Amino acid sequence: MRSKLFVPGSRPELFAKAFASAADAISFDLEDAVAAERKEGAREAVAAMLGGLPAERRQTVIVRVNALETPHFAADLAAIVRDGLDIVNVPKLESADEVRTVAELLAGLERARGLARPVRVLANIETPRGLRCAAEIAVADPRVAGLQVGFGDLFEPYGISRREHAAVAAIRLAVRLAAAEAAIPSYDGAFTDVADAAGFRAEAEAARRLGYAGKSCIHPSQIALANAIFRPSEAEIARARRILAAAEEKLAAGVGAFLLDGVMIDEPFIARARAVIAQASGGPHA
Amino acid sequence: MRSKLFVPGSRPELFAKAFASAADAISFDLEDAVAAERKEGAREAVAAMLGGLPAERRQTVIVRVNALETPHFAADLAAIVRDGLDIVNVPKLESADEVRTVAELLAGLERARGLARPVRVLANIETPRGLRCAAEIAVADPRVAGLQVGFGDLFEPYGISRREHAAVAAIRLAVRLAAAEAAIPSYDGAFTDVADAAGFRAEAEAARRLGYAGKSCIHPSQIALANAIFRPSEAEIARARRILAAAEEKLAAGVGAFLLDGVMIDEPFIARARAVIAQASGGPHA
Amino acid sequence: MRSKLFVPGSRPELFAKAFASAADAISFDLEDAVAAERKEGAREAVAAMLGGLPAERRQTVIVRVNALETPHFAADLAAIVRDGLDIVNVPKLESADEVRTVAELLAGLERARGLARPVRVLANIETPRGLRCAAEIAVADPRVAGLQVGFGDLFEPYGISRREHAAVAAIRLAVRLAAAEAAIPSYDGAFTDVADAAGFRAEAEAARRLGYAGKSCIHPSQIALANAIFRPSEAEIARARRILAAAEEKLAAGVGAFLLDGVMIDEPFIARARAVIAQASGGPHA
Repeated sequence: MRSKLFVPGSRPELFAKAFASAADAISFDLEDAVAAERKEGAREAVAAMLGGLPAERRQTVIVRVNALETPHFAADLAAIVRDGLDIVNVPKLESADEVRTVAELLAGLERARGLARPVRVLANIETPRGLRCAAEIAVADPRVAGLQVGFGDLFEPYGISRREHAAVAAIRLAVRLAAAEAAIPSYDGAFTDVADAAGFRAEAEAARRLGYAGKSCIHPSQIALANAIFRPSEAEIARARRILAAAEEKLAAGVGAFLLDGVMIDEPFIARARAVIAQASGGPHA
Repeated sequence: MRSKLFVPGSRPELFAKAFASAADAISFDLEDAVAAERKEGAREAVAAMLGGLPAERRQTVIVRVNALETPHFAADLAAIVRDGLDIVNVPKLESADEVRTVAELLAGLERARGLARPVRVLANIETPRGLRCAAEIAVADPRVAGLQVGFGDLFEPYGISRREHAAVAAIRLAVRLAAAEAAIPSYDGAFTDVADAAGFRAEAEAARRLGYAGKSCIHPSQIALANAIFRPSEAEIARARRILAAAEEKLAAGVGAFLLDGVMIDEPFIARARAVIAQASGGPHA
Repeated sequence: MRSKLFVPGSRPELFAKAFASAADAISFDLEDAVAAERKEGAREAVAAMLGGLPAERRQTVIVRVNALETPHFAADLAAIVRDGLDIVNVPKLESADEVRTVAELLAGLERARGLARPVRVLANIETPRGLRCAAEIAVADPRVAGLQVGFGDLFEPYGISRREHAAVAAIRLAVRLAAAEAAIPSYDGAFTDVADAAGFRAEAEAARRLGYAGKSCIHPSQIALANAIFRPSEAEIARARRILAAAEEKLAAGVGAFLLDGVMIDEPFIARARAVIAQASGGPHA
């Protein structure tokens, strides 16, 4: 999911356009984009959309529900756990216990409704406590398919500036390492200044250098940028091929560490080269 | 407490001048500024000062005691817990248990002396273990009114350079997020080069961008800088007002996320705008 | 151990040259530099080398074994725990329990073989979980003589770029602070581009500013750089002497905090000055 396009659940007139976009995933929002008195209508609109999806489709379908402690959460889940839903995106998760609560609710609904395959969870890391417990959230349940960092909720209530690049970078790294403990991907948060393409690009490239798999898009203009940035470049692919060719030869000769263009290569670098080639061949973006 | 002026407890001739300053808080030091053989005299001088304070005063009165594990701690507390003391500043706290020990001692002294209101605790985060456990310290007891980062004790014994800006920034962020878990403010550490006003300003502005509420001052010349930096600027106030006006209109129309000047605004940004206006109106600096 | 030279255990023809180098420590590698089918031969070559060491030698002798969960670990330990071995370097440690397992195995082998002094452990922090648990690893057992950060294993499998300086710096700081909890030194990881002396120097200097004691060397050309960078400079020594002279005078006068060249000096700065002088006089590099 290099690009994940947000669409307010309360605006069904935008749904078809979202599916026509080049986004790898569409995230229908029932949370912050929808005011309280529209929650019910948005829930129904999203449920109807899920019911009408073709069995075969290119895009991953995500719904962002309201947080676990809100009065909306149970109704959100009851409405959207059905065929068509790939991933439920849960905001403000703060502990492994909360993840397990969500997982049990999902399992119950899946059983009751005879769903063909389990719904996965995209866990939002967007509170100070959630950030501190991000690794335990990531490993809490096999349904957790990724960590999504959210800077708005993490920064704004505490007066932390979104333009403080060092803080953004530190939090990105912490979330990436937490996801790495569970061997799941991490996804970068939204960039709110939709007119600033250079700003979006800079953030996406920084996230890419930390091993992020993709980035939230809150405007269709951000999709192409995300798709281009979150894939291996030609230079990375060529370098990975050279490493794998050299490694094959060296390992056959009993050598585990060797120089390539003056740079020492050993096991972790070889593993990385394999991952680059796998991703370039259409494998999972992790 | 945008500015918190340190005064050695062993120098009572400076006390009146400190109260005449523009500092939001005065912190009388019984710890590092006072050599061992002067501890007792300093304690008595500070206790006498507390006893002579008027009931109504502008400034918050803090005493920094010696650390919990020192032989001075109990005597410090016994001397200073009395009317007049607002906050006890405890150095080198490292666990929730230590905070609870301090809280119980305070409660016992308050009861014995019939104090009108509880003494609050400003918890110093200034050791590697304290930093790792900063969130648990922040949430350990409702008396904890703030976290105070200390770079001298955290850096010097381990040979970490105070001029390594990335390290300073990383620790500031960690302490800010720990304080955020308890919804309490955080305060930036002292800047030791008293002749370098630009250096103080740069540090204070960096702390402000991470949501810090104030900074320690070890020289009166630093007070005005801190007071000016740790309050919302006119531009911030104007922007917050525009966000709140737009939000009122949009939320009434059922819209939770909207663009303002090309930037997406939703719940956390609206909450922040409210906080800026509250602080500008003289509310708590959190 | 300002400089720690890596030598593949499978290349005994390089051992004498390594001992002839100016490196403070030699680290014989049984792990990533040695392909699987050469593990046994490397183990025997390193054991033979240890058996032939003179009782008096200048350099610290380290062996990097394979990780605890590999089939090689037990055989590695059985072969190398003997007189001559100073430190066993254990890769990918992730918990205090693992450290204690290693410590018990070492104690058993030492007893069985009647070794004169205990083998110490250099603990590699080079996985996301190991990084999160670095402090508990550092304090788990008194045998742990240092933390060694490893960027290859920590970054490559997760697609994190080694050239992302902010990420490198954040991890260095985290490992330094974890080591500080146990009052043990930390050592910077290898720099793989052996032709780039300026790059090595920049990394070593950055590590030094965070209080690191030394850096891995994967090529003899890196040794002199490490030895020069990881020792107090003349300017640092001169400044430390001035601080100690002033402190002696001030403390005698009952003053705990004072200005020197306009900079406030108190207890942690005085402690640091003592440490600089101790290290310059040939004391432990911590």
